This record gives sequence, structure tokens and C-alpha cells, in this order.
Amino acid sequence: MSKGRLEAFSDGVIAVIITIMVLELKVPRGANIADLLPVLPVLLTYVVSFVFIGIYWNNHHHMLHAVHSVNGSILWANLHLLFWLSLVPFVTAWAGQNYRAARPVALYGGVLLMCGVAYYFLERALIAHEGEDSALARALGRDVKGKASLGIYVIAILCSFINPWISIALYVLVGVMWFIPDPRIEKTLAE
Amino acid sequence: MSKGRLEAFSDGVIAVIITIMVLELKVPRGANIADLLPVLPVLLTYVVSFVFIGIYWNNHHHMLHAVHSVNGSILWANLHLLFWLSLVPFVTAWAGQNYRAARPVALYGGVLLMCGVAYYFLERALIAHEGEDSALARALGRDVKGKASLGIYVIAILCSFINPWISIALYVLVGVMWFIPDPRIEKTLAE
Amino acid sequence: MSKGRLEAFSDGVIAVIITIMVLELKVPRGANIADLLPVLPVLLTYVVSFVFIGIYWNNHHHMLHAVHSVNGSILWANLHLLFWLSLVPFVTAWAGQNYRAARPVALYGGVLLMCGVAYYFLERALIAHEGEDSALARALGRDVKGKASLGIYVIAILCSFINPWISIALYVLVGVMWFIPDPRIEKTLAE
Amino acid sequence: MSKGRLEAFSDGVIAVIITIMVLELKVPRGANIADLLPVLPVLLTYVVSFVFIGIYWNNHHHMLHAVHSVNGSILWANLHLLFWLSLVPFVTAWAGQNYRAARPVALYGGVLLMCGVAYYFLERALIAHEGEDSALARALGRDVKGKASLGIYVIAILCSFINPWISIALYVLVGVMWFIPDPRIEKTLAE
Repeated sequence: MSKGRLEAFSDGVIAVIITIMVLELKVPRGANIADLLPVLPVLLTYVVSFVFIGIYWNNHHHMLHAVHSVNGSILWANLHLLFWLSLVPFVTAWAGQNYRAARPVALYGGVLLMCGVAYYFLERALIAHEGEDSALARALGRDVKGKASLGIYVIAILCSFINPWISIALYVLVGVMWFIPDPRIEKTLAE
Repeated sequence: MSKGRLEAFSDGVIAVIITIMVLELKVPRGANIADLLPVLPVLLTYVVSFVFIGIYWNNHHHMLHAVHSVNGSILWANLHLLFWLSLVPFVTAWAGQNYRAARPVALYGGVLLMCGVAYYFLERALIAHEGEDSALARALGRDVKGKASLGIYVIAILCSFINPWISIALYVLVGVMWFIPDPRIEKTLAE
Repeated sequence: MSKGRLEAFSDGVIAVIITIMVLELKVPRGANIADLLPVLPVLLTYVVSFVFIGIYWNNHHHMLHAVHSVNGSILWANLHLLFWLSLVPFVTAWAGQNYRAARPVALYGGVLLMCGVAYYFLERALIAHEGEDSALARALGRDVKGKASLGIYVIAILCSFINPWISIALYVLVGVMWFIPDPRIEKTLAE
Repeated sequence: MSKGRLEAFSDGVIAVIITIMVLELKVPRGANIADLLPVLPVLLTYVVSFVFIGIYWNNHHHMLHAVHSVNGSILWANLHLLFWLSLVPFVTAWAGQNYRAARPVALYGGVLLMCGVAYYFLERALIAHEGEDSALARALGRDVKGKASLGIYVIAILCSFINPWISIALYVLVGVMWFIPDPRIEKTLAE
């Protein structure tokens, strides 16, 4: 089965997810800067979430680029990833309004963790289909960065009950780690 | 007429449908787990609807894959299917808020039933265009699973007036039945 | 310039327009059929608008199919059409809530009229680009149906101040007229 | 890396942005023309924003058309542009409700300025990738119009504190300047 529609559908869903988050920026009634202040934490959370969704799209783009065809399990692994990504707008809005409270910040990390787990499952489904000797499998290697991210998310979730700012710093750390698109795939494929 | 734009448009509509459902998860004001509890049934209904829309997308993907071209009737049969799918977010929200009430659970089943009927019409329009001897017609065969689903939906709608939980169990049953993408098409085409 | 991205962008915008209309179906609080009654006129207006947007997508699909390339004027004529189509959800919601009032029903017709006018401009821009002897120009001919629709819209807008039901009947009439995709293009291209 | 998915994803995001702005047109309860009056300034701001997003899409279309492949920096420069474009619906709604107040009109210009800056960064990333001798680099030249627009935005933001109408006139001026798609790229590529 060709990968074209999988890419098109994923692009569509990710495009909608990344854009509807902006609907959570509630337009203030007043016309002063003071009226914008309550929007500010939601805006900052939106920036973090936009970067995260952007990272997933970039990596999804790179990973699928190295794939030749797809099967039923890959379709479902991909939908599973899209499901967790689709919850990002909800937890963004909740954590954006309550960025000093443990539970919203922990839940935000929980959804990012599940996105990471779902991405890992998609990776495994693709490698199972392409073969352990494929360019994709060699490009991803032991995926240290992916596994480290999952570990940092778990620590961040636990830390949110001590101080939510530690968790927020850890989320930003993971974002920075992934900001540069995965050079392994580009390198391995170029060889 | 080529099928490319039909696939692209369907992907776009289904991507929006599957994503805007998440807007029905109303962000709670409080920051406690107790504040999330009213969201829980809507979230669970969202999971069921996400899986259903995902199943339709997967099967649509498979079915169109076996098709060579489209005509005017197919365009309309496809729009008819998209219409009923577009009502899923509405009934998801209503049933999610009233999951113990007969009528919302029955209406949820009614929309799923109409999606199934519309999918059947699309199947027939495609077979009429491709021919009764086409790979698609052989792949779909007598479509026992499709017809059984319609029967289960009717039973589930009737049962909702006895006990909505029976209906919910039957909806989940249909979902599980379809979870695996239709192997008939993959098999027949591989031959 | 190739027409691929114009088609993809139009598909995306039309897919969002046709789907966000469903957000105007406000989920009732109660779980009874009586609670659904206020939603009914909005639902029926949604059906009419869905069919209209579907007709535009079908005809857009057919017309662009007969086109080889696009230029700057065509991009703008297409954006102009998308602008008027994007107002359909707004007038659908207003007319759906006030289907017995003259002004909302007239404004609904006004937006449909502008969509028709914008579609006519797009037709002219395409014919100017393809040439008066092109397959497209021959397929569209004098476009009696397109011009008749514009006339009926004008009559319907005027009638809304006498009785909105006459206008609604005329909108449905235009919808029925266009329900079958334009066979002229299919025919002429087949020759 | 091929540019196909970058174009498809950008089309998807821009299609959603341009369409969800219409959700800010709040449907009035009453059925009279007087009830529509509060919607009018939001509608006019919507028209301006629609044209701006349309201009970006047209120019993006032209610019990417002249590009052969993309890399990681281009993906991020493009996401950066999409981020600022995604804030247009928010500032459109705020400025549309407060078009006589300095700060909303200034913020509107600030977001347009950042879109222009982001577009300039994307231009630089593309030229760095294609080469200073590429058709794209020659087509864009010194990009006087792009730089002039940034200057006009800065003046408009400052003027909003004197009189917001001056700013609005300057935004419309930039819109008119860009209304015609960039003929440089079409010309240079045609040579």
C-alpha cells in the first residue's frame, strides 16, 4: 500500500491540531494591554505546544520519507499517534490557565509522554515492515534521544508535584533537544 | 475522472472531523482532578468516535486503493458519507454528556447506522463503476461484516430504550470487529 | 504554473468550511427529543449548505480537471470564490436560527449569489487563460444554468421580504438543478 | 528532501487559518439589520486578514514553485512563518472589536510585521539552500517590496498611538501593494 494518503491524512490532522490551539486564545473584551495579560500564559503554552507539534511533524516527515510502503498496523500506529497529538490542544489550554498548579502541568506531561510512546510504537511498526536491515532501522539506530525524552517526561511529571516550574523547564529542555530535525535519517539516507 | 482529488478532499474533511471533536472537551476552570471528572465521559465517547472515524478512514483508504477512476455518482455517494460522518462530533458531544440517557445513545447509534448505510451506497456506486467482475467486487464479496454491522446498530438503537449500556457495549463490539483493516481487499489485490 | 497546489488549497479550505458548519449545531443540555427541537432548523439549513458547498466542490473539481495550468488572476479569482464560500457557515447559522425572518433568509441568498458570481468570474479567468477555443470554453458554452441560478437568487432575495418560505423553496430549486454534476464538461472532454 | 509535504502541510495550515477566522463572526441573536451592525467591523477586519493570508499563500506558492528541494532549516523557517500566520485570527478578532483603540490596531500590525519578518527568513533559508546564483535568488533580487512592507508596518504601529485610522490605511496600502502576485518570479523563471 502506498504511503501517499497516510502522509496526506497525517498532514491534515496535524495542520488542524496546530491551528485550532489558537482558538483557546480567548479574545479579551477590553482594548488595553492589561486585558491581554490573562492571555499571556496561554500564549506561552501555545508556543511550547506549537513547537512540540512542529517537532512531531518534522520527524514524522523525515521518518516517512525513509519508508517505501505501509500496512494495516502502520495505519493504526499512526492513528494512535494522531489521537494523543489531538489531546495536546486540550491539555495546552488547561495547563496554560493553571501553569502554577501541579495536576494540569503533570497531565500536560502525561499527554506528551503518550505522544512519545505512540511515536515509538509507530517507529517499531515501520521497522517491522521495512526490515531490521533497512535504511530506516539503521538511521534510527537505538534511538537514544527518543528513549531519553520519555525518561525526562516521567521525571517532569513526578516533579510537577514538587514544583511545576521544574516540569516546565524539563518540557522546554526536551523541546530544545529535538528542535534540530533528526540528522541520523538524512545522513544514513545520503550514504 | 481521476480519484486523486476525491481522496484529498475526503482526507481533508475526515481530518477536520476527527480533530474538531476535541473542541467538545470543555477545558475545566479548576486545577484539580475533580474538575476533570465531568470531562471523562466526553473523553471516553471521543475515544470511541475517534476509533470509528479512524476505521472509516482506513476502510475508505483500502477501498479507494482498489479503484481506478470515479464518476459523478461516486462523488455524491462520497459526499453523502462525509455528511453523516460530519454529524459524529455533534452526537458524540450529546451522548458523552448524557451517556445514561436512552435518546442521546440511540441517536449516536442512528448516526453510526447512517454512516454504515452511506458507506454501503458508496461501495455499490464503486462496484457499479468498476464492474461486477472487478478486483474490488471480488474483494468486497457479499460484505457480511458490513451488513452485520448495520444489523447490530439497529439492535443497539432499540436496546438503548431498555438499557443504554447494552447499546454502548454493542457499539464497542462493532468497533472491535472492524479494528483490523479489511484483509479481503489486500488479499484479493495481492493475488 | 501547475494547478496542483491550487486544487490542494481549495480542497483544504472547502473541507474546513463544510465541516466547521457543524460546530453551529449547539449541543443541547437536556437528554430529551424536545431538547433537540431548537437544533432542527439549524440542522436543515446545514443540510442545504452542505449540498451547496458539495455542489461547488464537485463543479470546481470538474472545471479544474479541464484546465492545464493557472496564472495569478486565476489564483485571486479562486481566493475570491473561497472568501464567499467561507461566509456560508455564518449565514447558515443566522438563517438557521431565524428561518422565518426576511433579512437572514435574504442575506443567505445574498452570499449564495456572491458565490455564484465569484464562480462565474473564475470561469471567465480560466477561459481567458485557456483560450476561447479550448475544451473548457466549449464545455461551459453559454453557461445557461449558471446565469439562470444567479437570476433565481436575485428573485429569491426579493421574495424573502414577501415570504421567506418562497426564498427557501427557490434555494432548494437551485440546489436540485445543480445536484447532478455538470455533464457538459465530461461529455466535451470525452469527445 | 522533497518539497511536496512542506507544501501540503503549509496548504493545510493556511487553509485552516483562513477559515477559522470566520468563527470570530459571532452569529447575532436578533433577525434585524441592526443586529448585524456589531459584526460589521469584525467582517471588514476579516476581509483585510483574508486578503493578507491570501497574499502569503500566493507568494508562498510562487516562491516554493521556484525551489527544487528543502532541508531542516527550511522546515523550521516555514513553521516559524506558519506560527505568526496562526496568530492572525486572534489579532483580527481583537482589532475587529476595537478598531478605534491604539493597542489592538498596533498589535495587529505587530503580528503582520512578524509574518513579514518570518517570510523574509524563509526567503533567506531558501536562497541559502538553492544558492545565490539560483533562479530563485535572481527572481527575488533585493526584494525592495518586502523590505518596504516591513518599514510601513513599523510606521503603522507607531502611528496607531496618534490615530488608528492612519495605521489601518497603511495596512490596506501594503495589501494593495502585494495584491498582484510577484511577477519577478514568473518572469525570471520564464526566461
